[in-house]
Amino acid sequence: MATPSLATPLALSLLHLLLVFLCHSSASPNPRLSNRTPRFPARSSLTTPQLLTQQQQHQQYRYETRYFEQQLDHFSFADLPTFRQRYLINTEYWAGPARMGPIFFYCGNEGEIQWFAANTGFVWEIAPRFGAMVVFPEHRYYGESMPYGSIDEAYKNATTLAHLTAEQALADFAILITDLKKNLSAEACPVVLFGGSYGGMLAAWMRLKYPHIAIGALASSAPVLQFEDIVPPETFYDIVSNSFRRESTSCFNTIRESWGILESEGQKNDGLLQLTKTFRLCRKLGSMDDLYNWLESAYSYLAMVNYPYPANFMMPLPGDPIKEVCRKIDNCPNGTSVLDRLFAGVSVYYNYTGEFDCFQLDDDPHGLDGWNWQACTEMVMPMSTKQDSMFPASDYNYTSYQLDCWNSFRVKPRPKWITTEFGGHDFKTALKMFGSNIIFSNGLLDPWSGGSVLDDVSDSIVALVTEKGAHHLDLRAVTAEDPDWLLEQRESEIKLIRGWLHDYYDKKQAFFAM
Amino acid sequence: MATPSLATPLALSLLHLLLVFLCHSSASPNPRLSNRTPRFPARSSLTTPQLLTQQQQHQQYRYETRYFEQQLDHFSFADLPTFRQRYLINTEYWAGPARMGPIFFYCGNEGEIQWFAANTGFVWEIAPRFGAMVVFPEHRYYGESMPYGSIDEAYKNATTLAHLTAEQALADFAILITDLKKNLSAEACPVVLFGGSYGGMLAAWMRLKYPHIAIGALASSAPVLQFEDIVPPETFYDIVSNSFRRESTSCFNTIRESWGILESEGQKNDGLLQLTKTFRLCRKLGSMDDLYNWLESAYSYLAMVNYPYPANFMMPLPGDPIKEVCRKIDNCPNGTSVLDRLFAGVSVYYNYTGEFDCFQLDDDPHGLDGWNWQACTEMVMPMSTKQDSMFPASDYNYTSYQLDCWNSFRVKPRPKWITTEFGGHDFKTALKMFGSNIIFSNGLLDPWSGGSVLDDVSDSIVALVTEKGAHHLDLRAVTAEDPDWLLEQRESEIKLIRGWLHDYYDKKQAFFAM
Repeated sequence: MATPSLATPLALSLLHLLLVFLCHSSASPNPRLSNRTPRFPARSSLTTPQLLTQQQQHQQYRYETRYFEQQLDHFSFADLPTFRQRYLINTEYWAGPARMGPIFFYCGNEGEIQWFAANTGFVWEIAPRFGAMVVFPEHRYYGESMPYGSIDEAYKNATTLAHLTAEQALADFAILITDLKKNLSAEACPVVLFGGSYGGMLAAWMRLKYPHIAIGALASSAPVLQFEDIVPPETFYDIVSNSFRRESTSCFNTIRESWGILESEGQKNDGLLQLTKTFRLCRKLGSMDDLYNWLESAYSYLAMVNYPYPANFMMPLPGDPIKEVCRKIDNCPNGTSVLDRLFAGVSVYYNYTGEFDCFQLDDDPHGLDGWNWQACTEMVMPMSTKQDSMFPASDYNYTSYQLDCWNSFRVKPRPKWITTEFGGHDFKTALKMFGSNIIFSNGLLDPWSGGSVLDDVSDSIVALVTEKGAHHLDLRAVTAEDPDWLLEQRESEIKLIRGWLHDYYDKKQAFFAM
Repeated sequence: MATPSLATPLALSLLHLLLVFLCHSSASPNPRLSNRTPRFPARSSLTTPQLLTQQQQHQQYRYETRYFEQQLDHFSFADLPTFRQRYLINTEYWAGPARMGPIFFYCGNEGEIQWFAANTGFVWEIAPRFGAMVVFPEHRYYGESMPYGSIDEAYKNATTLAHLTAEQALADFAILITDLKKNLSAEACPVVLFGGSYGGMLAAWMRLKYPHIAIGALASSAPVLQFEDIVPPETFYDIVSNSFRRESTSCFNTIRESWGILESEGQKNDGLLQLTKTFRLCRKLGSMDDLYNWLESAYSYLAMVNYPYPANFMMPLPGDPIKEVCRKIDNCPNGTSVLDRLFAGVSVYYNYTGEFDCFQLDDDPHGLDGWNWQACTEMVMPMSTKQDSMFPASDYNYTSYQLDCWNSFRVKPRPKWITTEFGGHDFKTALKMFGSNIIFSNGLLDPWSGGSVLDDVSDSIVALVTEKGAHHLDLRAVTAEDPDWLLEQRESEIKLIRGWLHDYYDKKQAFFAM
C-alpha cells in the first residue's frame, strides 16, 4: 500500500481556505475560514512529478507539443527576458485555410496543460464534426511555461512573479493565435474559445477583450462575478453546504458539529497526536489549521466534482460522491464517534481506491504557488460562511486577507482591478449594449455557479444552466452514463457554436461578394 | 520682432518624418522621407514653457484641476512608484447621480491636457444640453502627469519610459472613471468618450476594451487602421499631396520640383549657408535633413489643419490655409526662384502674423520625446511616398525604422502589437459581430482620414465623413464661419450620442422594473 505523495493531496487542498483559527480571544472561539480565494480544481505545476493515473492516460488525446516565444510583459517595453510557452496542437481534422476551418482554442488555466487537455474531452470529441483544429496553450507560470527558465526562478519573489496576471495570459493567447494563423495562412479561419473554471473566465474575458481574434467563447463554470460585492460572499460555501444538506440532514449535522469537537480535541494536551491517529496522518499534525484545511478542501472539491458517474478528475471517485460520503458518515455502526464518522466520510474523497495507509497534509499553505499569487494580486474573491452553513461562521475580512498576502508574497492585492478591467458590476446592462457570442454554462451543484452568469444577457450571450451539473461537467468526455440533460446541454452548446460559425461565414461571404 | 522660440516650431515639426537622405549611392539620389510615424498635432510637453496665444486663452473653459494617484503598471505587480495623473473637471451643468447625468470624458492624448481642453470646444458646448459633467484627463508621460517625479526622470531611458503605452493609458482612464463615479455615488451615470487624433484612437479602443465603463465613443480623425498593411503606406502623403494639387497644379509642381533643387543647392560648397539665408534661419543649417523636415512638417500640418476659417490650432492661420500658401507660391513676380516661392509659401504657415525675423529649426529630431517613443514601440504606422506625389518617392523601410528606434531609445518596436491588441485587420467582419456605439468622424482633407474608418460598420458603429473637413474639425468650438456641412455633422453626432443615452436609460429602467 502506497503512502500518498505530497503531489496528490496538495493538488486537492484548498490551501488558501485553511480554516485558520484567528485568535480573536473569546469573541469568536470557533474555527474560522480564512478569507483566501478558494482554489479551482487543477494540477498544480509545483506538484511535480505528476503521475497520470491509468484512466487519465486513456483520456489523453493525440497532439503535438510545441513551444512559442512570448514577451514577458506585453503592456510595457521594459527590457525583460522572453519565455517559452508550451502548447498542444492537433490539425488532423482541420478543414484547412481554404475552407476556413475553425480553430478550437482552449484557454489554459492554472496548471499543466496536458492535464486540462486530458479532462476536456468535449473539445476533442466535437472538433472532427466541425473540421476544427484543436489548440491547448499552457498558461504562463504553470507547467513548462515558466519565465526565467525554471519554476524556482519564476517563483522566487514578487518581482519574478509580477507578470503572472490574467491580462498577460490573454495577450499571450492573442499573440499565439495571430502567429499560428499567419504561419498557416489561416487568417480568415474563425477561432472559438473554450475554457472551464478560471479557464472559462479567461475564455469569456478573451471574447470581450479580443473580439477581433475569437468569434465566440464557451465559458464553463466561470465565476466572472465572484468579485467585490457583486454576489454575496457566502454564496460559495452555501452551495457546498447545501449539497451535503440536500443529501442527508444527519450527514450535514455531523459535519457541522465536527468543528467544535475538533477544536476541543485540538486544545487537549495530546490533542494533535490523537487527531493524527484518528485521521491516519503520516506525520504528526502541526496545527489545527492544517486539518481544518484538509477537511474543508475535501468538502469543497466534493461539491465541485459531484458528477453523476464515476470520474477521476481530481481523484478517482464514485458517481454522486457526496451521496457516498454521506452514506459512510450516516451508516457507521451506532456509537461511532463524530470524528470517526468524519474520517470514514472524507476517506471516500482521499482514498476511494483504498490504496493509502496514511495521509500527508499540506503543511505549507503559504508556499509560493501560482494560484495563491493570483489570489493575492488580482483574483480577490471575497468568501465568508454563514451561521446556518455546515462550516464555522466567518465574515470576510479584507484586512487579514491583505496581511496574509503581504506575509506570503510581499505583495498588495488590487481587489477592484478585475471588475475595472473586465467588468462585472451591472454586467447585464453593459453587455446588453455590447458584445455577443458567449455561453456561460453552469451546473447548480457547483459552488462556483453562484459567482457565474445564470441568466441570458442577450440573444447571443446566453446562460445554459443544469440543475444537477457540477464543475464544468459539460467539458468532460462523453461517457456511457451521461444523463440526458447533459447530452442536451452539450447539444445546445454545439448548436450555438455552429450558429456563430454560420454567422461568421455569412458575413465573410457578404464581404467577399462586395 | 521676436525670434520664434524652439517651442513653437518644435511643436509643429514632424520630427520623425525628417526627410533623411539615406546614402543609397546612385540608386536613389533624391531626398527620402524617413519611415517614422508622423506626428499628430499636439503641444509637446517637452516644449515648455508654453505660451498660449490670446485666442487660445479665450478658448479656455472653466474647470477645476485635480490629481489622481495611479499605478505605473496596471498589468503587472512589479514594485513600481505610483504617479499623479492630472485631470480637468467641470460639474457645473451635471444633472447629478439621481438623474443619471452623463459624464463626458475626453481621452487625453500626447500633450498637455489644457491645450486639448482649449481646442475641443464641442464637448464643452454640448455638455449643458446633456446635463453632463466634463472630464479631461491627461495622458501619462505628458504635461504634469509624469511618472518618477519629473520629465527628466520619466524620459531618462527605455526603462523609465517603458510604461508609456496606450494600454496603460486606457487603464488609467478606466480606473479614474471608476473612482470618480464611486466618490460621487455616480455608478449608474453613463460615460461617453470623446477623442481626436490619437485621442480618438484611444476613445474607440476604450469603447471596445472597456464597454462596461463607457457606453459609446466619438472618435474623431482616429487612424485606427494606419497599421501594418491594412491601408497602403502611401495614403497619408497622397492626401497631403492631393490637397496641394487640388488647389493649384503649378503650386503642386513647384513643391515637387523643389526637392531636387534643394538637394543641388545643399551639395554646393556654401550651399547650407545659402539655404540658411534663403529660408531666413536663425542659425546656420546643420544638415539638409533639418530643412527637409521643416518643410515637410509645414505641408503635412497644413493639410491637417486645412480648416475653412481662420484658426489657431497649431499656429495662427487664415481660413483655407493651403489656398493661401499656393496663392503665395503661384503669385510671386515672374522670375522669382523656386526656393524663394517656397519660402513665401511656408511663411504662411510659420509666420502668418509676420512676427518672426528668422526661424529656428528643430535640430534634435531624435530627442527623447513622448510621441517618438510611442512611435518607436507600439505606434508603428508605415509611411511611404509615391512617384506621383509632391514628395520625393520613398518606400517604407522597416529595417531602417527599427534601427532608428534602437539608436534613439534602445528599444525594439512591436509593429504587430496594436492590431493584435485592438484589431484592425478584417475590422468590419469582427465588429459587425461585436461592439456598438462608436462614431468614426473624418474630414477627407485630413491626411489621417485614409487610415480611419470611412464606412459604416454596423447600425451603431458608424462613419461620419465630410468632404471638406480637416483634422477633427468637428471637435472644435462653434464659430460664426462654420459651414453648413459642419453644423450638420455635429448635429448628427449629438443625435447619435443622445440615442446611446436613451438606449442606456431604457435598459436601466427595464432592469429597475424587473
